[in-house]
Formats: sequence, structure tokens, C-alpha cells
Amino acid sequence: MTKQRLTIVKIGGKIIDDPLRLDVFLESFSTLSGPRILIHGGGKVASDLAAKLGVDQRMYNGRRITDIESLKIVTMVYAGLINKQIVAKLQVLGQNAIGLSGADFNLLTAIKRSPGVVDYGYVGDFHKGSAHTENLAYLLKKGIPVFCSIVHDGKGHLLNVNADTLAAELAASLSGLFETHLYYCFEKKGVLMQYDDDNSVIPQLNQQRYNELKIYNAVKHGMIPKLENAFTALNGGATSVCIIQDNALIQSVKNPKNHGTTISLY
Amino acid sequence: MTKQRLTIVKIGGKIIDDPLRLDVFLESFSTLSGPRILIHGGGKVASDLAAKLGVDQRMYNGRRITDIESLKIVTMVYAGLINKQIVAKLQVLGQNAIGLSGADFNLLTAIKRSPGVVDYGYVGDFHKGSAHTENLAYLLKKGIPVFCSIVHDGKGHLLNVNADTLAAELAASLSGLFETHLYYCFEKKGVLMQYDDDNSVIPQLNQQRYNELKIYNAVKHGMIPKLENAFTALNGGATSVCIIQDNALIQSVKNPKNHGTTISLY
Repeated sequence: MTKQRLTIVKIGGKIIDDPLRLDVFLESFSTLSGPRILIHGGGKVASDLAAKLGVDQRMYNGRRITDIESLKIVTMVYAGLINKQIVAKLQVLGQNAIGLSGADFNLLTAIKRSPGVVDYGYVGDFHKGSAHTENLAYLLKKGIPVFCSIVHDGKGHLLNVNADTLAAELAASLSGLFETHLYYCFEKKGVLMQYDDDNSVIPQLNQQRYNELKIYNAVKHGMIPKLENAFTALNGGATSVCIIQDNALIQSVKNPKNHGTTISLY
Repeated sequence: MTKQRLTIVKIGGKIIDDPLRLDVFLESFSTLSGPRILIHGGGKVASDLAAKLGVDQRMYNGRRITDIESLKIVTMVYAGLINKQIVAKLQVLGQNAIGLSGADFNLLTAIKRSPGVVDYGYVGDFHKGSAHTENLAYLLKKGIPVFCSIVHDGKGHLLNVNADTLAAELAASLSGLFETHLYYCFEKKGVLMQYDDDNSVIPQLNQQRYNELKIYNAVKHGMIPKLENAFTALNGGATSVCIIQDNALIQSVKNPKNHGTTISLY
């Protein structure tokens, strides 16, 4: 039997930070048909709140170290403020959105990362069986799951995860039930050959090419984790992954080859 | 056909504020059988956060005036922090909890209260058809809805509502599909004849007796809105309403007459 197409879209923090841009994005998202999942990043609201509260934001290799106070802040901002604002906006657009963390319906469990060179605190990593795909499929029959990047460990604790990684995990896990297509929407036009040249989009990128570019330091500026997540999704069974600008979503769904960067294994 | 019993439990802010007491309560809640809904109040976390952020908390007749900054705070604290912490704890207890605001699945819509003597700001009132009972029944088949007191206006805005009122609205609306039993759990042993005497619990209270007690100023200290909500639930079709101490929930479900205050119309 042919699997039904499932469109999984992740929007980055810079789109969340710009209310007008977010509205435009949500309008285009709502014109797509068929089952869909939206995943949102955090933006700078959490950092702003941490600064106001005098909670130090420590980073390591571009990743936030999530101590207990930071966990409270991201839970409030991501699962509370941003998530419910997006859900309310989608409802106006006739989209039956339901805002979710991984704890809700036990949808996504992660394991707290063990301290290594650095202790990342309340940060989670996914494992085999992280996603409760049956419960997620049940929600997909009635509406549009909207995920923030807070999950739980199944032992009563919340954990912060990377939103790109969460999107990849869903695209991979749900590939058993659906033909999953993952779109990473952000402020750039795709993966760029030169970071400051918007016209240097790499249209297609496979694993081998990516490895070569990495050796020559041609891929950087936070793009490496996003690409690693893209390959994780594909290796896990996702049908396609595109890295595109937020305003290119509709066109990319119609014709991925002409927009942003299409990621493939081979 | 006999309707299935639905147990609707609201826990007050003083229970939320005490982590150990909350854990004990959630354990007893999880031993109940059949479909259930949990509604939680806010506690003092929101006020504490507002104070830290320098956001003035104005009250009128014991009700919070919710300006835009206060709305952001309660959305973060109620829909984010408290809701997801409760959901994660219930999951450990084998309860398939799903945390919800009224915006999610369009479950609860309210109308922003028009400014009168005082402008309450982003505060909502329910109306006929506020609850999307079909979507709620769908979720009840798979798990336990856990509501915070944030809803939406269906026009893209979030609104703060009283958690007791939300519980009453659910008990009334869902009475078309279920035999609904509502339990208001709080720190006192029930409705007290003398506020400072824990042994002065009024075992049963009907509308006429309540009106008499009000005339003699025997009911006060925030109990009046709770009782008004109880009568709203009963008038709307709820089968029973009990006002009890949090630790009496299980006993009250088994035998309401022996615990706290049972509210009835006649």
C-alpha cells in the first residue's frame, strides 16, 4: 500500500522573532494540504527573559547549557508563550493546531546527556523508540501537531532538545507510517557555498559532497548540525529533506529541485 | 443509553505551590479509573515571576487584571512550566496525560471581557458553545487532558480565565456526552461555616441555603466565586459537584456524602 505523504516543517528562531514574518509563514503553511507537523525553534525571547532574570546563559560550541533555571525559562517560553501563540494564530487560519511537548501523550522521550568535557545539563538525546508514533498518528487524524523543543525523560523530568534534531527524529520515526518530507525553513536561501553570498546556494547536497565540503571548511556557521540532522532523517527513512528560506515553502513542496538545498544520501 | 462517568478534577494554586503535596495528589489522582480531566490553577509562581520582572500585578475584587505583559507571564507559567511539569509527572505514573490550553484543538473559546468599572484586560468569559466537546471526547479516548486556564478568542489572541470557571464550563458542556462529576480540590476541608475553623465544614449546600448564607455574610474569602461556578456547572447539566481537600479525592469519589461539601441545586 502506498503510504500517505506527511509534511514536516521546522521554522527557525529568526522567523519566530519577527511577528510579521511569522504571520506570513503561517499563512503559507496553512495553504498546504494533507497531514502536517510544525516544529518551532525558540528565538531570542528565552535569552531576553534569562537576561532580565539575571540567569547566566552559558554556551558551548554554539549549544546552550541548560541548568535548572534555564530549563524553567525555555519551558515557559517555548512550551508556553511561543507554542500557544502559534497555535492560536493557526486556529484563526482554520488549522486545527494542537501544541505539544514530548511529554504530552508521551510523544517523545529522550535520555539526559551524560556529562563529558562539558555538562550540558537538562539536555536530551533521542534513542531508538523515542517517538510514540501511534499516539502521534492518532492526533494527526484530527489536526496539526505543533511541537516545541521540550521533551521528557519518562522519569518525570523535562529536557531541552535541539529543534532541528526533534524534527529529524519525527521524520525518521514516522517514516514507518507515512512518506515523510522534512523542510527546514530558516532565514537563508539554503545551504550557501559562501556564507555572506545569498546567491551561492548549493542546490543539491549528498553525503559524499557534504564530507568533502566539511574538510575544506566550506560548511560552517551552525549549518553542520542542521546537515547532520538532515542525514539522520534520511538514514532513518525520511523520503526527502529540503533546507529552504521560509518564504519558499509552498514552491519547494511543489518542486523541491528549484528551491533551496535538497539533501540526499547518494 | 447510560452515559459513561467522567471525573473532572480541579486543583488549586496552594497545592501547585507545594511540590510534595502536588506529588501526593497526582498519585491519588492516578489511582482513579475511567475517563478523567485535570484542571490546574496557577499558584504564586506567576506573581513571583511578575515581581522579578517588575511587572505590576493589579487586582480588583481579588481578580487579577491581565494586561499584555501579565498575559505573557501567565501563558509562560501556566501553559508552559506548570502544565508540562504536571504532564511529565503523570506520565511516570502511567497516566497518558496531554497538556492543553483552550487554543489547542480549538477546545475552549472565550470572549474578551468588555471594560466596565474596571478593565480586566486579557480576561475571557465563556459563552454557549465555548467548548469543542467532540475534539475533547476524541482526546479522552486515548488519554487524560490536563488543562491550564489559558484559552483563546478564536481571533488569534490568548485570554486568561479563572480555572474554577473553566472546570465548571467543561463539566457543563461535557454533560451532553458524559455523566460529569466535578471535584474542586483545595487546601481547606470544604466550605466552612467559620473560615478559621476547619471543623465547621458544611456537608451539603443547595442554592437556597447558599443564598441565605450569603445574606448573613457567612460565605466569603474567595468562596463565593467557587460556589457560583459550582452552581453554574450543576445548572449546565453536571451530575455532581464536591468541594474537598486535595487529600480526600479518592474517598470523595467513593462516597461524596462523607467528605467536604457536596453542592446540589435543591
